[in-house]
Amino acid sequence: MAKKDLMTPPSVEQLVDLLRQLPGVGPKSAQRMSLHLLHKNREAAAALGHALLQAVNTTRSCKKCNGLAEQDICMVCLDNTRDTGVLCVVENPADMLAIEATGTYRGLYYVLMAKYAPLDGVEPQGLGFNRLLERVQDSLVTEIILATNFTNEGEATAFFLQQRLKPLGLRVSRIARGIPIGAEIEYIDPSTVARALLDRQKIKLTD
Amino acid sequence: MAKKDLMTPPSVEQLVDLLRQLPGVGPKSAQRMSLHLLHKNREAAAALGHALLQAVNTTRSCKKCNGLAEQDICMVCLDNTRDTGVLCVVENPADMLAIEATGTYRGLYYVLMAKYAPLDGVEPQGLGFNRLLERVQDSLVTEIILATNFTNEGEATAFFLQQRLKPLGLRVSRIARGIPIGAEIEYIDPSTVARALLDRQKIKLTD
Repeated sequence: MAKKDLMTPPSVEQLVDLLRQLPGVGPKSAQRMSLHLLHKNREAAAALGHALLQAVNTTRSCKKCNGLAEQDICMVCLDNTRDTGVLCVVENPADMLAIEATGTYRGLYYVLMAKYAPLDGVEPQGLGFNRLLERVQDSLVTEIILATNFTNEGEATAFFLQQRLKPLGLRVSRIARGIPIGAEIEYIDPSTVARALLDRQKIKLTD
Repeated sequence: MAKKDLMTPPSVEQLVDLLRQLPGVGPKSAQRMSLHLLHKNREAAAALGHALLQAVNTTRSCKKCNGLAEQDICMVCLDNTRDTGVLCVVENPADMLAIEATGTYRGLYYVLMAKYAPLDGVEPQGLGFNRLLERVQDSLVTEIILATNFTNEGEATAFFLQQRLKPLGLRVSRIARGIPIGAEIEYIDPSTVARALLDRQKIKLTD
């Protein structure tokens, strides 16, 4: 590898190493990206550098929901057309955006800062759970939708939350599991098919 | 889309737009990357921002080969253990790194700043061709290896270069086309198989 180090200027090596930390970027893509930026599109490289620093400097976590915000409170929490009675608990801001992209949810959100992952040493107290409880008790929330992922950790988090929320007498729901729209059942994993059968919805027959 | 704009802080939107300009990054990956950086790894975001600006500020094109360098002349051109008699012409610095990674080539390089693409308005004079000619005439080069890609544009560039280099009386070669190592012939496109047959290499029989 000494030969490669000799070839690549140190500032480029450092850039490649940092690009590799992006999700889904391997060593080959990181190299391709850095050469693209420095060889073909230096203006874009500088613009991206400035945009990263600006985003780091101007964004913070919303004090109410933990989502990304440029002020103390994010634009969703500030939006007074939202239904303040429903709170959707998600694992991260990307999930929040995915739900928002449906255009069908008009309630508020709470972004857990981590998921319950005892194997990784992330215990429930690290989830910002007390802040969620305060958030629920200080507000008009009557229903909590648990929208953590259907992974082991997301399920454990949802289970943990539902137990703690039970004494508060709120309506607690979990987003539905089942066959994705557009999917063919033969290609879906058995546990999802089993769940889709178990959670079957009664069809109202019309004449 | 107005709803989405409301959701995402402007500095994050800008970051997503710039990340999308990276090769191989679509809208979904760009969003995932930006949320990963701003939500989970803000130190990495700041480090990447600084690294981009530093790389833009410290790197330039090598005055001899056009490769990426931190001084006027890159480390390959400065390396006096290199064979100055052979010059490998490539389309971009990534190709140079790919050849360098083989560890088998000890000559020098010349990076074309563009490929011959008449349909995109890139005419041969834009290829830095005169600089390549000067480079060849001022030096000890006796063989030129044309290592442009086997795309239409790369082939056109190689053809154009070989015609212009002919009068100089140098040995001009083209890297070999054929079946990639590890590949199965039945999955290779017909024109590559045809070329592999045409360019078959005589085997020296030993007893």
